Amino acid sequence: MASTVSTRPATADPRAQIDPAEIQRLYQRASEFADEARKVLQAAWTTGFEVLRKNDGSFVTSADLKTEERLRALIQQQLPTHGILGEEYAPVHPAAAFQWILDPIDGTEDFVQRVPTYGSIIALHFQGYPLIGVIDHPALNLRVGAAWGLGTFQNGERVRLTDLDPSLIDGNERVVLSARANFTRYADHGNLFDAITRQHPNHRIYRSCFAHTCAITGAADAMVDYGNRIWDLAASQILVEEAGGKYVMIQDVDVPRVGRVLGGVFGKPTLVDRLVRLLR
Amino acid sequence: MASTVSTRPATADPRAQIDPAEIQRLYQRASEFADEARKVLQAAWTTGFEVLRKNDGSFVTSADLKTEERLRALIQQQLPTHGILGEEYAPVHPAAAFQWILDPIDGTEDFVQRVPTYGSIIALHFQGYPLIGVIDHPALNLRVGAAWGLGTFQNGERVRLTDLDPSLIDGNERVVLSARANFTRYADHGNLFDAITRQHPNHRIYRSCFAHTCAITGAADAMVDYGNRIWDLAASQILVEEAGGKYVMIQDVDVPRVGRVLGGVFGKPTLVDRLVRLLR
Repeated sequence: MASTVSTRPATADPRAQIDPAEIQRLYQRASEFADEARKVLQAAWTTGFEVLRKNDGSFVTSADLKTEERLRALIQQQLPTHGILGEEYAPVHPAAAFQWILDPIDGTEDFVQRVPTYGSIIALHFQGYPLIGVIDHPALNLRVGAAWGLGTFQNGERVRLTDLDPSLIDGNERVVLSARANFTRYADHGNLFDAITRQHPNHRIYRSCFAHTCAITGAADAMVDYGNRIWDLAASQILVEEAGGKYVMIQDVDVPRVGRVLGGVFGKPTLVDRLVRLLR
Repeated sequence: MASTVSTRPATADPRAQIDPAEIQRLYQRASEFADEARKVLQAAWTTGFEVLRKNDGSFVTSADLKTEERLRALIQQQLPTHGILGEEYAPVHPAAAFQWILDPIDGTEDFVQRVPTYGSIIALHFQGYPLIGVIDHPALNLRVGAAWGLGTFQNGERVRLTDLDPSLIDGNERVVLSARANFTRYADHGNLFDAITRQHPNHRIYRSCFAHTCAITGAADAMVDYGNRIWDLAASQILVEEAGGKYVMIQDVDVPRVGRVLGGVFGKPTLVDRLVRLLR
């Protein structure tokens, strides 16, 4: 009966089906998972870890593997019907409505070199829509978290992005972006990197999710992420939107023998719009 | 008499005139100055600070001013014949053999935005030669320090850079560099930024002395710093050389109404040589 009287449009946001109290409980779980990831990573940072090279030339450490294993075990124990998609292991329940998307260490090369900007990314999507996002930086004692309808928080304090005044955009705005390697990794889009760095010369490049955290908290005005995988980006849309920012997907391609490759621009809306125009 | 029997060449390094025990004492002083700067900055980070724009459009805060004032007072009290050259105030004893060169906050924009990579730079030069260098990152609990002949230390532990194997340089080496803004600030040398980012796509840009710290400790393989002032670079040559790395000056120009503008490439020797060839 409910469906016949519903005023919800056919394209209704499926997240509205979920009881807000349930979203709150899932957000609490995600925060506990981030606590657990932080514990594993801090222990590895202190006592040491093994470093391996993956087939694609990138680094992986025993700390990445151990963290993802621990998170998977917790999810399978506490939420056995939920799906899991993680950087280091095979998917679990790929058809489930709830999908946890995990990057145990984003910025593994930095972790290996003891650069403290690395972080863990934990996201929960529902029917393909981002519901919860957490980015945790153990070495910086810094965490951002968000849940749909509940807001974005930095170490527990609400984050509210203030948009830039368009008349004050003068090249001094703070843009973070991926390294040029990301723009040429699967196809040569180096021209996009060149265009961004020319138009927005006050830029920073961190090569880890610390760049996302900066755009989410307003420490940077916008981020351009390019040539990355779903686990790199899965937390950031909900984090930036719940903070009052804007997220635009600018790349979504299927690369043979790699999989889905994504790019996004996000942060303060006025600058996001300018960057999207520049890149299209 | 000594000069007639000396085997020292006419271009002898004037630092060899200084008693090593005196260098050790001066290094101890520099470390105490860094402690003091850290105290002032940590207090400002916690309790807040005022932000102003300078004539050149860059930021300065009450914390920059207070830190430099405190360091100047300590130097004038303890070492009254020494010169002082700092970012925020006029020089003291500009003809003195010993010159303290101070940047109370390098990365003031990051400090303002609560990005923890900012740092204090404290250097002592003797007759134009770098004698002591300290870079301190209060928010990262990270300090690098060096004195001529005594080595380089990271939080008290000796740093020894290992050079790269030239046959393994493949574009994955880790280069840190200044933002494009630095390459176009006084003259358009944006082509140099483009050349570096194309040849070395695994790059990072921090816009603060954290980039130097990475090259000094080996967390990055080399740094290209461009379009900066003496207080930005004054500590880094001794820091990298005492760690076993190489430092090459690539820019030293006098810009009207600005002053001396410098650039340097430093870090692991093999990569420094490649970068210098690329830039010349």
